[in-house]
Amino acid sequence: MNAEILSVGTELLLGELIDTNAQYIAVRLPALGIDCYGMHQVGDNEQRLEAALRGALARADLVIMTGGLGPTEDDVTREAIAATFGEPLSPDPALEEALRARFAGRNIPLVERNFKQALRIPSARAIPNPRGTAPGWWVERDGKIVVAMPGVPSEMYLMWEEQVATELARHPTGATILSRTLKTNGLGESILDEMISPLLKSTNPSIGVYAKRDGVHVRATAKAPTIEACRALIEPMEAALRQILGDAVWGTDDETLATVAGRLLKERGLTVATMESCTGGLLAAAFTEAEGSSAYFRGGLVTYATDVKALEGVDPVLIEQHGVISDAVAADMARAARERFGADIGIGVTGVAGPAEQEGKPPGTVHIGIDVGGTGRAEPYRMPQGRQMVQQRAVMTALFQLRRRLLQA
Amino acid sequence: MNAEILSVGTELLLGELIDTNAQYIAVRLPALGIDCYGMHQVGDNEQRLEAALRGALARADLVIMTGGLGPTEDDVTREAIAATFGEPLSPDPALEEALRARFAGRNIPLVERNFKQALRIPSARAIPNPRGTAPGWWVERDGKIVVAMPGVPSEMYLMWEEQVATELARHPTGATILSRTLKTNGLGESILDEMISPLLKSTNPSIGVYAKRDGVHVRATAKAPTIEACRALIEPMEAALRQILGDAVWGTDDETLATVAGRLLKERGLTVATMESCTGGLLAAAFTEAEGSSAYFRGGLVTYATDVKALEGVDPVLIEQHGVISDAVAADMARAARERFGADIGIGVTGVAGPAEQEGKPPGTVHIGIDVGGTGRAEPYRMPQGRQMVQQRAVMTALFQLRRRLLQA
Repeated sequence: MNAEILSVGTELLLGELIDTNAQYIAVRLPALGIDCYGMHQVGDNEQRLEAALRGALARADLVIMTGGLGPTEDDVTREAIAATFGEPLSPDPALEEALRARFAGRNIPLVERNFKQALRIPSARAIPNPRGTAPGWWVERDGKIVVAMPGVPSEMYLMWEEQVATELARHPTGATILSRTLKTNGLGESILDEMISPLLKSTNPSIGVYAKRDGVHVRATAKAPTIEACRALIEPMEAALRQILGDAVWGTDDETLATVAGRLLKERGLTVATMESCTGGLLAAAFTEAEGSSAYFRGGLVTYATDVKALEGVDPVLIEQHGVISDAVAADMARAARERFGADIGIGVTGVAGPAEQEGKPPGTVHIGIDVGGTGRAEPYRMPQGRQMVQQRAVMTALFQLRRRLLQA
Repeated sequence: MNAEILSVGTELLLGELIDTNAQYIAVRLPALGIDCYGMHQVGDNEQRLEAALRGALARADLVIMTGGLGPTEDDVTREAIAATFGEPLSPDPALEEALRARFAGRNIPLVERNFKQALRIPSARAIPNPRGTAPGWWVERDGKIVVAMPGVPSEMYLMWEEQVATELARHPTGATILSRTLKTNGLGESILDEMISPLLKSTNPSIGVYAKRDGVHVRATAKAPTIEACRALIEPMEAALRQILGDAVWGTDDETLATVAGRLLKERGLTVATMESCTGGLLAAAFTEAEGSSAYFRGGLVTYATDVKALEGVDPVLIEQHGVISDAVAADMARAARERFGADIGIGVTGVAGPAEQEGKPPGTVHIGIDVGGTGRAEPYRMPQGRQMVQQRAVMTALFQLRRRLLQA
């Protein structure tokens, strides 16, 4: 089965928004044995959208659409699909009821315009949207499938995961494609590339190396008649890669450094607390991003103003002697965080996010301290330039170092 | 003049790469008076690429292509353009010479394959590539223009800035396009749409309504011979929109809630501190995202574990009486943050990010307290579902309410 992705929204054509929805879907099609032969972004214009949909349907078995399902006048995806299949739009009582129920739950008035989202054509089956007011559409006719989902990523993701992906998996396709991603930290892209160069020649599984925010990822992609056959191809490759990359590999596939560190903390029944300055709360946020993080994350302090650090228990003498941008202060921030929040482990992050230098230290200078039950240790790092880049890398490095300490413990 | 953007590369269809090139170009077309009516991503397949190019040329005056100009076998952009216009590819001596000179400059062997990049069709004019080996193509025929540039962003950007943009600017399009975005918070998309519905009928400027993370945006886009004429069309519309939307409008164009709140704090010489639970540090991070935020952001506390709140100065009696998910506790968190960090203003955020409920309160329940110099006030909110969604909305709402309080003060 081959597919095309059709994203709707004038913001896309103005470049105000980048089409991450198409990427989200494209990444997930191979595992379903579906080849993607084209992606398209069109504006909120019914005629042009209908033309684009007709074109895609002429080429592909499956057209996956996102966007244009809102309640406003310029949301025209339903109209375009109806026109393409030559079917009338009419109100679906069940959808109207669901809409009423949803609005009743929150104190927002339900206006006439909202009922546009309860319209349906005979060939369309509604796909529930647990996170929004716009139901999706599953249209199956003349051997073609059109799936329409909302453009709001959080709504679309859930609709895809819980319903569309499962439904598509039921449709028989020739081959299956399976990928396995190993996520590393601490190795540069080119160095890693050289380390595994003998394996890069492999064609099935094929190997890809990608530099990402949280480190360098290595992906093995196998194509075979069944998932099991794919696994049989991937397993020896994964073993060979791990042999070479060792403990630089911190996780796989959908794992994040925060979920990996969180799992280790849970397994060991340990709690953690943070005190951070240059990362401004992003380290605490990384921990709390994971569901159930309250089991191991006690709390955090963002000591942004320098005097606040002393105020919050960092030894003023150390600040006096070493300056706030130092290993000594990072380690003491970790201790202070651990003690004041009554946690087993404390993490301290201090540095210069930039663009201006601080204490004569250049932007990108970051010191990370980790205190496990009273044993503190801190290390200096030099992150790449760019305020947000420095903050992100500092958070990732802190989580990676925490994982390392937990595995040593 | 209207255009379509055609990006070439199988990585795009696998989602390994996101099409930032199309965005880069799209953002720059309106100022040239060019309307973009479609973007497309196709793989390294000559037949499909040719079909896509023919389709785009049938609809648009201008087709801007990126990618597929490399020296390898699967770089087929030149072949596809040649086939589309039915013109033969032949070596261009000048391009071959340039290629030799370029390789001579570095110690890389020039292999036969490289000469592929010196091929040209009669209707194509080469566009020099100062940063790479692949020259671009400017093809003009039958009143249509096809511009082909390399996919490597750094090469494409320079080629665009120094040559393509200038060249396109010379083509009389008779119009310039200018947009003005008003950013609102606190109004639902459908309600806002109804409020301004009389204005939605306007065609120049045209009005678009978009639901974004930080609220609903309203964009007025004017088309006129000059920028000044565009401004003259937009100004009365902006005034009319502001008349209706009032203080729901918190910013324009590139402004963010964090920069707007930060600017107000700076102007008034006030400092702020935060105590947050369900947002896990994201509120503090939002403040520190802006450069120079140390001028007004003192620090923050992430009181994730319930007992930590009391530990950090929240009145245990209030927690006892009202529970942690309450206005009373949100207001007291604001007070505690203000006092302990010695700030003028404190913000407290407590709520249920989900997915599990807490104290019998459903996910999405959020209470935000703001304490300005001792005068505290808190309000309850009900955010849409989805853990990250709840956190983001809570942060945006807190910043919006802070702005409101600052404007009242």
